[in-house]
Amino acid sequence: MTAFSTEVSTSQAFPPSDSRERVSHWMKSLQNKICQGLEQLDGEGKFQQDNWERAEGGGGRSRVMKEGRIFEQGGVGFSEVWGKDLPPSILVQRPEAAGHGFYATGTSMVLHPRNPYVPTVHLNYRYFEAGPVWWFGGGIDLTPYYPFAEDAQHFHATLKNACDAHHSEYYNTFKLWCDEYFYLKHRGETRGIGGIFFDYQDTQGVLYPISYPGSQMDTAAAQHSQAVGSVKGRTWEDLFAFVQDCGNAFLPAYVPIVERRNDIAYGEHQRNFQLYRRGRYVEFNLVYDRGTIFGLQTNGRTESILMSLPPMVRWEYGYQPEPGSPEASLYDTFLKPQDWVNWRPNS
Amino acid sequence: MTAFSTEVSTSQAFPPSDSRERVSHWMKSLQNKICQGLEQLDGEGKFQQDNWERAEGGGGRSRVMKEGRIFEQGGVGFSEVWGKDLPPSILVQRPEAAGHGFYATGTSMVLHPRNPYVPTVHLNYRYFEAGPVWWFGGGIDLTPYYPFAEDAQHFHATLKNACDAHHSEYYNTFKLWCDEYFYLKHRGETRGIGGIFFDYQDTQGVLYPISYPGSQMDTAAAQHSQAVGSVKGRTWEDLFAFVQDCGNAFLPAYVPIVERRNDIAYGEHQRNFQLYRRGRYVEFNLVYDRGTIFGLQTNGRTESILMSLPPMVRWEYGYQPEPGSPEASLYDTFLKPQDWVNWRPNS
Repeated sequence: MTAFSTEVSTSQAFPPSDSRERVSHWMKSLQNKICQGLEQLDGEGKFQQDNWERAEGGGGRSRVMKEGRIFEQGGVGFSEVWGKDLPPSILVQRPEAAGHGFYATGTSMVLHPRNPYVPTVHLNYRYFEAGPVWWFGGGIDLTPYYPFAEDAQHFHATLKNACDAHHSEYYNTFKLWCDEYFYLKHRGETRGIGGIFFDYQDTQGVLYPISYPGSQMDTAAAQHSQAVGSVKGRTWEDLFAFVQDCGNAFLPAYVPIVERRNDIAYGEHQRNFQLYRRGRYVEFNLVYDRGTIFGLQTNGRTESILMSLPPMVRWEYGYQPEPGSPEASLYDTFLKPQDWVNWRPNS
Repeated sequence: MTAFSTEVSTSQAFPPSDSRERVSHWMKSLQNKICQGLEQLDGEGKFQQDNWERAEGGGGRSRVMKEGRIFEQGGVGFSEVWGKDLPPSILVQRPEAAGHGFYATGTSMVLHPRNPYVPTVHLNYRYFEAGPVWWFGGGIDLTPYYPFAEDAQHFHATLKNACDAHHSEYYNTFKLWCDEYFYLKHRGETRGIGGIFFDYQDTQGVLYPISYPGSQMDTAAAQHSQAVGSVKGRTWEDLFAFVQDCGNAFLPAYVPIVERRNDIAYGEHQRNFQLYRRGRYVEFNLVYDRGTIFGLQTNGRTESILMSLPPMVRWEYGYQPEPGSPEASLYDTFLKPQDWVNWRPNS
């Protein structure tokens, strides 16, 4: 608290007066850019837009592509909401926000391709202001159904490049954070091969909240963050620029993977496995995901919050992959944290 | 607390010395009886049993029927577990149990029929002991996909008969409780037509916990319970006999509905609607269900906990039933609390 009180006396600790307009404008432009890129990639599917308003304040625009050539379903949402109180799950992390109104804006996306060889992918970036505090959060992560190490390497290397332009410790820290966040404790599995994820980034410089309520994995990310220590001297402009580079890294990280995999022929066996694994996506989003919980707790628009859920899903009691199969390789290697950025073809 | 201290001085407040053996024996016999009845009804599908042990203490037997004639999937589980501490979600309700070991045994069941005209159904009965406190809980509820008022009437009337043999206020109170518990707040819908549900039933005689954390509906059940007041003078034997009658009411409540509806022809339209509505079952179980949360919080066997999830599910952004259709009738009438037991053919 003392450190924070000192920080707010410097001008760098405050957002600029037009912070909300600038961030929400960029969040909308990210939604536009992603939708244009995906329509071009798909070649057939088009996004349909629904505008919505929230009784307590704010609203958004939800865009959904159904039954495209590549994407069985894809949702890209923008929202800008405000209200009296942040929900308890956030106030635990930022008690300074208690008793203040809040403002939040963000863009989020989940794509469910039809071909099981093309991975599902998720992006979310968000910005909060509440009384004396503000922060950026978000990330990008990839969920393959079939194991291609070169795809994982490309995805992580692209995100690392975006991070490295801003701080040498960002990628390592936010990669660990992502592995920890997208972890299904009840399954003992990561959701996929991860990516980067961060939250509560402000000028206080704390990269990782040491006591992260609901932390689901081991404490690797927390230990790493302690070793790194606080990254001081970051301004609001630094963080906004970093988040923009992260958002802009999405298309180059994902599009080449789709182009490589979408023409691979598949059969009922691969489709069934994809539908089964999509069940894990549902389990994660409904049991653990803080964005989903935030939306439901703040009377968000249910259809927009749950447009991340897959169009068709299967559960099967007691499923086990056949030893030596590609499905087993997914479980053995791709559903555990790996140093993907340093993977090499003959490693 | 004072009332409770007085009560425990009477012998009726204590369970008999062989309470655990008697209840767990009955829970197993209920599982047997239900599985036999369902195999006979299905005519083709057979339950396969998995025995499992829990590292912290106890175990169970999970039985699953896959790809039967009537049942696309059905799971009937028995478990008997013990450990050091109850999870926080229960200790909030029974703080007297803090610092004591616990014992819990129960039977639970979810059936997913193939024909969309046959409703999904759920049963769960459970018994807890922890230090100075013990209680029974559970219920039965029906989730139709297509609206048949006579099915809803039969289902509720059968449960009411079981309740009325024990207390004239049970059915009304536990029906309201069920409507409140199986409510999807983010959808503004009940899960189905309800049934009965209760928890924390002991000699204290409190029918309904007035401050029910996470209560999802209005306070109708709480208000009714306050009006009824505490039901005093119930012994452990009374409550055990009541729970047995509730469990035994399942087959007569459900089997005639299956027999009436399973031969109705259906097409892709009805199947698609069923798969879509099954998504609500997933949303309820993963977001709200206390049994699921208890299982995941106490390191239960994930495959057994999640065998309630449907074998195939669909989500569709922005779905709305066509006005005047049977699907619209489900939404308008069957996904809201109704006085089903007093429904008459020409009402």
